[in-house]
Amino acid sequence: MAISALQKERANYQPKLPKALRGNVNIVEGKATESVADQADIKKLFPNTYGLPLITFESVSTKTAFPALNVGVILSGGQAPGGHNVISGIFDGLKMLNPASKLYGFLGGPGGFVDNKFIELTAEIIDAYRNTGGFDIIGSGRTKLEETAQFDKGLQNCKALGINAVVVIGGDDSNTNACVLAEYYSSINAGVQVIGCPKTIDGDLKNEMIETSFGFDTACKVYSELIGNIMRDANSAKKYWHFIKLMGRSASHIALECALQTQPNICLISEEVAAKKQTLGEIVDYIADVISKRAENGENFGVILIPEGLIEFIPEMKILIEELNELLAEGTATAQAFSHVKNSHRVDWTAEKLTSNSSVVFRSLPEGIATQLTLDRDPHGNVQVSKIETEKLLIEMVEAELAERKLEKKYVGKFAAQNHFFGYEGRCAAPSNFDADYCYSLGYNAANLIGNGKTGYMSSIRNTTAPAAEWIAGGVPITMMMNMERRHGHMKPVIQKALVELDGKPFSYFASQRDLWAVKTDFVYPGPIQYFGPTQVCDKVSETLKLEKA
Amino acid sequence: MAISALQKERANYQPKLPKALRGNVNIVEGKATESVADQADIKKLFPNTYGLPLITFESVSTKTAFPALNVGVILSGGQAPGGHNVISGIFDGLKMLNPASKLYGFLGGPGGFVDNKFIELTAEIIDAYRNTGGFDIIGSGRTKLEETAQFDKGLQNCKALGINAVVVIGGDDSNTNACVLAEYYSSINAGVQVIGCPKTIDGDLKNEMIETSFGFDTACKVYSELIGNIMRDANSAKKYWHFIKLMGRSASHIALECALQTQPNICLISEEVAAKKQTLGEIVDYIADVISKRAENGENFGVILIPEGLIEFIPEMKILIEELNELLAEGTATAQAFSHVKNSHRVDWTAEKLTSNSSVVFRSLPEGIATQLTLDRDPHGNVQVSKIETEKLLIEMVEAELAERKLEKKYVGKFAAQNHFFGYEGRCAAPSNFDADYCYSLGYNAANLIGNGKTGYMSSIRNTTAPAAEWIAGGVPITMMMNMERRHGHMKPVIQKALVELDGKPFSYFASQRDLWAVKTDFVYPGPIQYFGPTQVCDKVSETLKLEKA
Repeated sequence: MAISALQKERANYQPKLPKALRGNVNIVEGKATESVADQADIKKLFPNTYGLPLITFESVSTKTAFPALNVGVILSGGQAPGGHNVISGIFDGLKMLNPASKLYGFLGGPGGFVDNKFIELTAEIIDAYRNTGGFDIIGSGRTKLEETAQFDKGLQNCKALGINAVVVIGGDDSNTNACVLAEYYSSINAGVQVIGCPKTIDGDLKNEMIETSFGFDTACKVYSELIGNIMRDANSAKKYWHFIKLMGRSASHIALECALQTQPNICLISEEVAAKKQTLGEIVDYIADVISKRAENGENFGVILIPEGLIEFIPEMKILIEELNELLAEGTATAQAFSHVKNSHRVDWTAEKLTSNSSVVFRSLPEGIATQLTLDRDPHGNVQVSKIETEKLLIEMVEAELAERKLEKKYVGKFAAQNHFFGYEGRCAAPSNFDADYCYSLGYNAANLIGNGKTGYMSSIRNTTAPAAEWIAGGVPITMMMNMERRHGHMKPVIQKALVELDGKPFSYFASQRDLWAVKTDFVYPGPIQYFGPTQVCDKVSETLKLEKA
Repeated sequence: MAISALQKERANYQPKLPKALRGNVNIVEGKATESVADQADIKKLFPNTYGLPLITFESVSTKTAFPALNVGVILSGGQAPGGHNVISGIFDGLKMLNPASKLYGFLGGPGGFVDNKFIELTAEIIDAYRNTGGFDIIGSGRTKLEETAQFDKGLQNCKALGINAVVVIGGDDSNTNACVLAEYYSSINAGVQVIGCPKTIDGDLKNEMIETSFGFDTACKVYSELIGNIMRDANSAKKYWHFIKLMGRSASHIALECALQTQPNICLISEEVAAKKQTLGEIVDYIADVISKRAENGENFGVILIPEGLIEFIPEMKILIEELNELLAEGTATAQAFSHVKNSHRVDWTAEKLTSNSSVVFRSLPEGIATQLTLDRDPHGNVQVSKIETEKLLIEMVEAELAERKLEKKYVGKFAAQNHFFGYEGRCAAPSNFDADYCYSLGYNAANLIGNGKTGYMSSIRNTTAPAAEWIAGGVPITMMMNMERRHGHMKPVIQKALVELDGKPFSYFASQRDLWAVKTDFVYPGPIQYFGPTQVCDKVSETLKLEKA
């Protein structure tokens, strides 16, 4: 396997650990906890793992003897930079507790846990993956661990391997399921502990005890590097508006963080669109207003950031999509009738069947997009929202709006646009120092939670805006982060998803600056992630974290 | 103006100069030169600037006194990383010759030279742009300097500012025009010298004396970073084929360099497609063959690199496009008739009017693309080749081919694809150390050519695979790189464009490895450009240069 010059050098990086995790580690149990909401319901569902104490670790001089431990690790869901460092942190942490400990990796995500596909992660394997991006060491998968049959099969596999504990590295849903698994194993005295680790580039798994999910820092830095490069191009060529869509279906943390790093002319925030009940037309007007103002200054260029999930946060679009899903649902008479309508008449036919509000919205869409909404459906007849090219939709609608304003002499500029979508470019980047350190600490910490017999906990590293040495290491009962939510028609205990808070400091700062950034060209060019330079460059934390902890 | 932490640190970087340019510089004139071809024609067209000697510089202990010089600089054409360093190199070089020298920047490209739009580039301005990407210090433009009236107006402006010399930073066409300008000013004894600098990320301005054009190194490193990240994602998720289009309309140097850096499963090279007269169907078959082979190994993922200009290098597509341009040319009877054809019949109507070969090709295209070819035309009725989404075209055709093979039981896998296009992400990146050093040296060198009274030369830095100290600095008569080519129906003297040579070392190495890379997953992950680390990481030259000079 050929490896790059950077990867070779980077393999030697020793991630920084909090002081609390260096040498001999002592466990300190805090007070009992409660869930963030719906305490009675959650307590009833998690009799064995509810109300557990908060845990912190401290470094002590006395050495505790630990038995050798066998641990299994699972990567769940989408890739995020730093996953390999979580695993190397678990490995090193286990070996520190007892050199005879073993780490197994379940292959291809939770499916490997159920189907008993695994490898032993030896020192040689671990060393080849330290500080690298990707989840390729054992692969990931999207199988959901939800059913008792899966839990039982997994347990059998654990027993066969002598596994004492499983670490699930995943997002909010995967950690919810990890807790359900922990509860089940506790309830049957299975003798297998379960620990979660907070992963997702989307940044929506965070709360009082989990300051950030890993991968968010690196992914946002990669996207910001590219956005900055495009801004410099826009400001040099002075002829294009760049519409840049950024990954993140449900929350706009990525778009907001990138905006804070680069200062674009416009950044849409889905949560604000939903809160203000903005229409697609209002969004198009806002963009056209900024473009018109800049045109008056002779600046016919700029950069606009768009969160991937925007469409579903526009109330009228959400309703339209729901109506379309119903209208064209597999097996219905309307879907049947629709299939006999000629291609060229399908938009009209559909518009007539919608409620009058939705019909107006539908007819306001560019023809190509309207057609796509009726044709590009999944096997159940649902609109494939993730396939809607929001950045192109907005370009077309803004173009039409500007053409109208030109006729009315309200717009004097020239409009030409380029579109981009960044997602896969950042999910598997090699971790920044922050993520490399944070992930390694999360893993090392998880090993200590296991060594101390804990289950149903999420590995937690706090005080992350301070230097790594001062980070607080410990564990948070997963039930503490739960509330009850309706999912697929049933009330379920789930970890609260963290959306962008419109009264939070990151959004408030953005909102206070955006009108300036809109008209003035005040782009910031962050450049590529650096690993070897001055600490103010290499160890920078995200703007979101900095503002949240300020 | 807010600047990023990296930009702040990077401002302090002192680009490395060749030993020859340090301290006092002496000029050494070599033997007289000849053009690469069509010597008699070129000599006749350039009586004053033909046959000039090659020039090299050497560092000496004796100091020569130079008068104060006023110089104007022009950025011409598309952005390339390092332009600001060329300008700061000129500035420092001029000040070294005589501290009373002045540098003016013409604004917005060659147009500013003609229309007398300029600023004086003071030390304060220069310092704010050292080692940064972009062309925003003075802006660039695409006005072509071709007519005597332009030359005369430019000369007037030069005279008013007391300008002794103009430096044109541009690609092959801009440097050809710089030479025509130099010849004209010589012929009328204008007293204004003209020097060129080789710029283009495309890498197609290179020859025996110009080892590489600036910006190529940085742009390819940015694209390779992203390709590597996507490869790691492909290899982790194991479910997508990523089709990545890379900027570069006429030559495939960028795609080839990125392939050498990252080892993708497939990289198409336009020059090979043209040489082998491959059809679109053959290209689709080749891709489908590789996908099928990997599917047999259970690997339903991979990465494919596609040069932006591919379509025009496929002989049958080139002919089809020419026929469409003729058929639908503005004002023709056929274009008139076409405009009355219903949308849904336009593809059929058009197919019937084409020659039988082109008709077959046209009908083999996915419907959306065929429609786009008839509708998306420029104001003259020409097909807008740059708007053809080649990456999506190939995905659709490969998908159809694989579906057929599946029916015939010749393909066992699952095919899902993602498409990407990288161009603007790299053109304005901050220059790598290589480009920062190379550009600064090119500019410093240009100042010395001016100081020594030279005109019609291109600034040349050679031996670039050695450490910067050992680089050879000098000048090459631009006429030396010229031949006669037919352009717009007339024979013109132009600098030969460097396409990928199929018997050259970079392509040969690629061709020797690609079958292995196709089937085996042997991706390399270069990671982001580093500025502060070990020299083997930070000062790496491009693989193309390394192989060419090996």
